[in-house]
Amino acid sequence: MPDYERDNIRRMVGYTWGEQPNDEATIKLNTNENPYPPTPDVDKALAQLAGANLRRYPQPTADHLRDVIASKHNVERNQVVVTNGGDEALRLAVTTYVDPQTSIAVAEPSYSLYPVLAEIHNADMVHIALDENWALPVDFAATVNAAGANLTCLVNPHAPSGTLTPRAQLSDLAEALNGVLLIDEAYVDFIEPDAAYESASLTQSNDNVLILRTFSKGYSLAGMRLAYLLGSKGLIDPIVNKTRDSYNIDHISQAVGLAAFNDQPYAEETWRQVRSQRQILRKALGQLGLSSPVSHANFLLVEVPSGARFNAIEIYHTLKERGILVRHFATPRLQDKIRISIGTSEDNNRLIAILTELLS
Amino acid sequence: MPDYERDNIRRMVGYTWGEQPNDEATIKLNTNENPYPPTPDVDKALAQLAGANLRRYPQPTADHLRDVIASKHNVERNQVVVTNGGDEALRLAVTTYVDPQTSIAVAEPSYSLYPVLAEIHNADMVHIALDENWALPVDFAATVNAAGANLTCLVNPHAPSGTLTPRAQLSDLAEALNGVLLIDEAYVDFIEPDAAYESASLTQSNDNVLILRTFSKGYSLAGMRLAYLLGSKGLIDPIVNKTRDSYNIDHISQAVGLAAFNDQPYAEETWRQVRSQRQILRKALGQLGLSSPVSHANFLLVEVPSGARFNAIEIYHTLKERGILVRHFATPRLQDKIRISIGTSEDNNRLIAILTELLS
Repeated sequence: MPDYERDNIRRMVGYTWGEQPNDEATIKLNTNENPYPPTPDVDKALAQLAGANLRRYPQPTADHLRDVIASKHNVERNQVVVTNGGDEALRLAVTTYVDPQTSIAVAEPSYSLYPVLAEIHNADMVHIALDENWALPVDFAATVNAAGANLTCLVNPHAPSGTLTPRAQLSDLAEALNGVLLIDEAYVDFIEPDAAYESASLTQSNDNVLILRTFSKGYSLAGMRLAYLLGSKGLIDPIVNKTRDSYNIDHISQAVGLAAFNDQPYAEETWRQVRSQRQILRKALGQLGLSSPVSHANFLLVEVPSGARFNAIEIYHTLKERGILVRHFATPRLQDKIRISIGTSEDNNRLIAILTELLS
Repeated sequence: MPDYERDNIRRMVGYTWGEQPNDEATIKLNTNENPYPPTPDVDKALAQLAGANLRRYPQPTADHLRDVIASKHNVERNQVVVTNGGDEALRLAVTTYVDPQTSIAVAEPSYSLYPVLAEIHNADMVHIALDENWALPVDFAATVNAAGANLTCLVNPHAPSGTLTPRAQLSDLAEALNGVLLIDEAYVDFIEPDAAYESASLTQSNDNVLILRTFSKGYSLAGMRLAYLLGSKGLIDPIVNKTRDSYNIDHISQAVGLAAFNDQPYAEETWRQVRSQRQILRKALGQLGLSSPVSHANFLLVEVPSGARFNAIEIYHTLKERGILVRHFATPRLQDKIRISIGTSEDNNRLIAILTELLS
């Protein structure tokens, strides 16, 4: 029987998504969803939907949504493209800027989708290890440029550690890189305010900077698939007008996205709650001997000490049996750690109660 | 200022989508939307949506929807992949089966997105002209194979003519082709029942056949972006597990799609209405001297005779001024024709009234 797949597709293994159990009882601390629901304005927008309005094609470029996003970030409409989740944004960056058989650079460890996108595109990956504090090595840009990579993807705040690369360092990196720097800010909304992080203006000063934001976490809409890229007009225009599927954002997503984005005070309140819970959880985990880097994201990467009664994978399995999902990565640097998304206070208390039972 | 686009992206021009005016008053006969709203069950599904259910990621593979689709077509779940509109399905077929710098074959004229997808992928196009009756030339398969194309896309019923290639011919073609045959059945629901067209079983008999269906037309959901591919497990599996964005179908699309697909009697009634209106409209246009091939789709391709008071592009513009959008293609074989989507009887009567005024 002939096999019609391309060779690079046949060779690859697909992305492994986090477990998405159907039952509501599971406490889901494994895929960094916001523990709070979206603004009630989303419910109002949903209530206004009518089947009759779905008969026609949607506005092709989601312009109303682009406009409110552009306004918030002080950029122009043509510096914004809305995508069907962050995954589409990353794929489009690869499609638009990376020739097959050239390289994509990432800091290691990082989002496990990047190498999958590279394999689909038949591109190579340059993995550059972060230092012991999860910071970029000093020769990062030189290594990327030497490899000829036209696209570098950095998650900031970093996943899975939660650490933050400051703006000044990103600015220097953008200056030093020959290619495009995509800053994947999926978790940006949870940064501590005293870090005074601001990055959108980099898209004004540097024509090679793309910033990825998502509605999945900060706006509690993982179920909707909405994200956007900010960048110079030169970077955004080919995505809007050439490489994107023509009607990538459906009518309902545009309406729901607008409702969520326009209620910034509500979203900001969920971010405050997450930060507050993060602080409480980190302290409680620390008291159990589970230390983690200071996190600016809605998760903690906790290290299970070698002398503990259970190791990381055992803790993962035991928590799962007890109805709590967390994430374990079976890679050299992460195998002794678990990544825990910040839940509600009830979720977190339940987690701490079980871990206390297990570890003390 | 450096340009970060790939060379093939810089050179290309993007897809030109049909005009999508925002006002409800325009009679939109330009992009082949269903003139009737979706089933009231869609409204019920919309009414049951809650923001709180959007907080978590959707079921990654839209399995419930795959199951009802598989059941209708008598295939297995692993022979179905749901996509974000037909455009995503076409893109994924290119990504999965076509190596850059190899060829994609299409019958000419055809859907203008195909060459755009080829340009994005840096693949070549083999355009094979249909004969004077919009039928495939006898040497079609030989030409495709000689060009080494691993993917052939055929729209059936054909757009923009509305003509139908019978199943037996498709079966012979699938046997003769070395690569994948993608039958784009965007308009299949509007085929005259006495044509007794059936194609889904080709995916059982031929491991190189992909069939594309969409919710945009037959289920009145162009605003939602839902389509699916049927094929052998060997063709579908790499799309589901490798090349597709992990969460390509959002939570609401899965719910709305289920509601629409499960009410087949309602959808079938809209198809009957469209067929009935198509017959009435074709006859009325013929009486004005505007002839068109027998159409199995929800549009007519009418030829404006050379002796008419206005030519095709003038008719297009005049109709637009009068609030009716139709489609004109400025290509050699189509420039003397206009493509008219079938509207409601009110839409069609208004169209005929204006054309009568113009042409008689």
